Amino acid sequence: MPAAVINTLLGPDLRLMIEEGDAEGLRAFCEELHPAALAEVLADLEDDTVWSVLSHCSLPRQVEIFEFLSLHRQVELVDAIGKERLSKIVGEMSSDDRVDLLSRLDPVRVENLLPLMAKADRADVRRLLAYPEESAGSIMTTEYASLSEDSTVAEALQSLRKQAPDAETLYYVYVLGPDRRLDGFVSLRDLVTARPERQVGELMRRDVVSARVDDDQEKVAGQVMRYDLLALPVVDEANRLVGIVTHDDAMDVVQREAEEDVLMMGGVEPLADSYSETGVLELAWKRGKWLMFLSLVALATAQVLQRFEGVSEEYTWLVLFLPLVLASGGNAGSQSAALIIRAIALNEQGAGPWKLAGRELLVGGTLGALLALIGYLSGYFWFSLGAAESVMVAGTVFVVVIMGTVCGSLLPLASKKLGADPALMSTPLITAVMDVTGVVLYYGVGIWLLTTLAGTAAP
Amino acid sequence: MPAAVINTLLGPDLRLMIEEGDAEGLRAFCEELHPAALAEVLADLEDDTVWSVLSHCSLPRQVEIFEFLSLHRQVELVDAIGKERLSKIVGEMSSDDRVDLLSRLDPVRVENLLPLMAKADRADVRRLLAYPEESAGSIMTTEYASLSEDSTVAEALQSLRKQAPDAETLYYVYVLGPDRRLDGFVSLRDLVTARPERQVGELMRRDVVSARVDDDQEKVAGQVMRYDLLALPVVDEANRLVGIVTHDDAMDVVQREAEEDVLMMGGVEPLADSYSETGVLELAWKRGKWLMFLSLVALATAQVLQRFEGVSEEYTWLVLFLPLVLASGGNAGSQSAALIIRAIALNEQGAGPWKLAGRELLVGGTLGALLALIGYLSGYFWFSLGAAESVMVAGTVFVVVIMGTVCGSLLPLASKKLGADPALMSTPLITAVMDVTGVVLYYGVGIWLLTTLAGTAAP
Repeated sequence: MPAAVINTLLGPDLRLMIEEGDAEGLRAFCEELHPAALAEVLADLEDDTVWSVLSHCSLPRQVEIFEFLSLHRQVELVDAIGKERLSKIVGEMSSDDRVDLLSRLDPVRVENLLPLMAKADRADVRRLLAYPEESAGSIMTTEYASLSEDSTVAEALQSLRKQAPDAETLYYVYVLGPDRRLDGFVSLRDLVTARPERQVGELMRRDVVSARVDDDQEKVAGQVMRYDLLALPVVDEANRLVGIVTHDDAMDVVQREAEEDVLMMGGVEPLADSYSETGVLELAWKRGKWLMFLSLVALATAQVLQRFEGVSEEYTWLVLFLPLVLASGGNAGSQSAALIIRAIALNEQGAGPWKLAGRELLVGGTLGALLALIGYLSGYFWFSLGAAESVMVAGTVFVVVIMGTVCGSLLPLASKKLGADPALMSTPLITAVMDVTGVVLYYGVGIWLLTTLAGTAAP
Repeated sequence: MPAAVINTLLGPDLRLMIEEGDAEGLRAFCEELHPAALAEVLADLEDDTVWSVLSHCSLPRQVEIFEFLSLHRQVELVDAIGKERLSKIVGEMSSDDRVDLLSRLDPVRVENLLPLMAKADRADVRRLLAYPEESAGSIMTTEYASLSEDSTVAEALQSLRKQAPDAETLYYVYVLGPDRRLDGFVSLRDLVTARPERQVGELMRRDVVSARVDDDQEKVAGQVMRYDLLALPVVDEANRLVGIVTHDDAMDVVQREAEEDVLMMGGVEPLADSYSETGVLELAWKRGKWLMFLSLVALATAQVLQRFEGVSEEYTWLVLFLPLVLASGGNAGSQSAALIIRAIALNEQGAGPWKLAGRELLVGGTLGALLALIGYLSGYFWFSLGAAESVMVAGTVFVVVIMGTVCGSLLPLASKKLGADPALMSTPLITAVMDVTGVVLYYGVGIWLLTTLAGTAAP
């Protein structure tokens, strides 16, 4: 059932049960529905109501549901309860979700909370909180299952039964040597289908793909995707296993990074929360910053135009094709940027940036010729310009499209080279650069050429 | 190790082994490296070389490696071998990857190939080929593991060992009633940790999230993500299990849909293959279509400008702020479009389109006021316009930003309503609409107001 249907169907039932104090119904509700579906229903209720509904579930179930809420909603809910209840919830959470939540809370509150947690959990939180944002360490969980190479399959399965309550996944089990060194992994599938007396060492795969704890989360998600993994082990500089990144967290990263690319392409600074959870003022500010910058660029274009006032008074028809010149450069540039940004995200720059820019130049040349033809034909036939004027419009369009293409492909590459997000140098910025360049080319170079040629042509 | 490093390190080794005819080395190479890594090395080699390397692996391993190649590369390779070898490869492929490949081949070739395949496989191919593109049926595999409710855990594990060679995943096992009706599922984790004499019926979860075979793939991927699933069962109209969509295929859909959004935001028609696999001419055409359309819009803008030629000769300063007016509307519109497109992709339209458009109107008003202020101040102080002229510029910017915002949010929603991709009504189109509107407002309404007011003010 789609989320909207679930909410519409279950919301009223739930409210009725709360009003009637139907503890039995609420308990059944908590235990039977999928926690993700329940979280969607609860997301829209008031904080107190959410907590009173959750009180009817077991603690592990409460936490399971709670973890499916958005981080934004989790923070709101946590602010509505005391630290005793909070410490119970947080103590039960999976290590990665817990750290995500704590990193969003007031540091003073976190310091007050830590003493209430079990010692091992406390150390785990402190360690995970120390990893930089967007690193493998910041998205991994420390709750993995492990085995030693010399156990038999039967012993391994026995050990997994014991590890199950504390492991995020049992499907990949990591084989550790002395000092937690990552030697390989074995899948539960292989364990279940193997004869019980075989040794883990015979079954394990040693060509284990792993990430370093300081690797970028986007790279980590890319590896999970490329190798179709359920989980990717994360190791420190000495190849000791420190955590795992599970497929669902990797998928979230892919989704989030894609969202950032789309927003930056549209000239919006990426949002910390979802669109509907972001306030109007914050939205206005994350957009306003870019719009103001772009206004200044447009005013710089105006300044350039002003310098050509003498020219533009003489050639009033020039203004007609100004939108065409500006749009051609900007549009061709955003196209290149979109293609290159995705190629970088999918890690397929092919034979390096220069080859790529060369290819874009070729495409740009083709497109430039096409648009120049349209410019020439429409100038000559539609707007009845002279042949020289039409050639001048067409020539400007040609050059501007090629420049836009090269600029649109090089800016994301340069941005990546500098360690920034490739999408940062995106559509609005490229449009802005191309606007100024376009005006200079059109009013400056174009008209100069036109008058020079006319001067030469005249006897 | 990143892909580039693997290729640089292993490429030369591999070539040496091929030249020396080192069969032992090649076999070791095939069996020890991760198939995904191997596929990356092979992708860059000539077709014949790829096949001669693969000949050194067992058939299942050959297919495992082959399936990690891009579809584009698979098609190229398939064209280089005869139908006997092809039928062996295709017979061994997983059902979803097989259909993806066959749907890309020449139908005549497929018809010649089918008689060489096992009867069950043939029926499977025909059934899967019949599902529409981008439906759940087109991305699912039919190789799932299933159990009946009344078996014990020990029997279930025994049965799974038998099903293992033909199941894409053993981690979710579907519990089927009469006529393959989907009654629930049980995870391998639960089976492994349960006592062997318990019944599957006691362990199974009945609140199973499933997709319909004709559901859109984007919705399916969204469900896998929302519920953190390893696989999602796909049922027909009678709730009979027909296949499963695994997490890795769902992740590919998320990635692909995100890529489409970015490209459409940039005004590029989505590519069938990856950027580097797409030819220059195809790239030029997928971009050229949009650019030509946008050129026509720019020419329509020119036509509108021409109608105001009398005005523009009188007010030559108008052209200075034309880029500002055009950019403000277009940029504000792309921002809204980017936000709404992502909100739709994440399935969080909140309280419906109208509330959303209302919210955007509020943000648009704030941004419009901000940019209008910049327009006024720069007109008055920087470009020394009169107060009335500066107000006219500011007023146009204000209206254009609000219109851009509303238009940028409504177009994707309308596009979705009509069953098209929301990103279709994206940046370039919004920019185009706002260009024409902006010119009419600026040259038409603005100047009319200015002269009317001046006329009234003058005695």
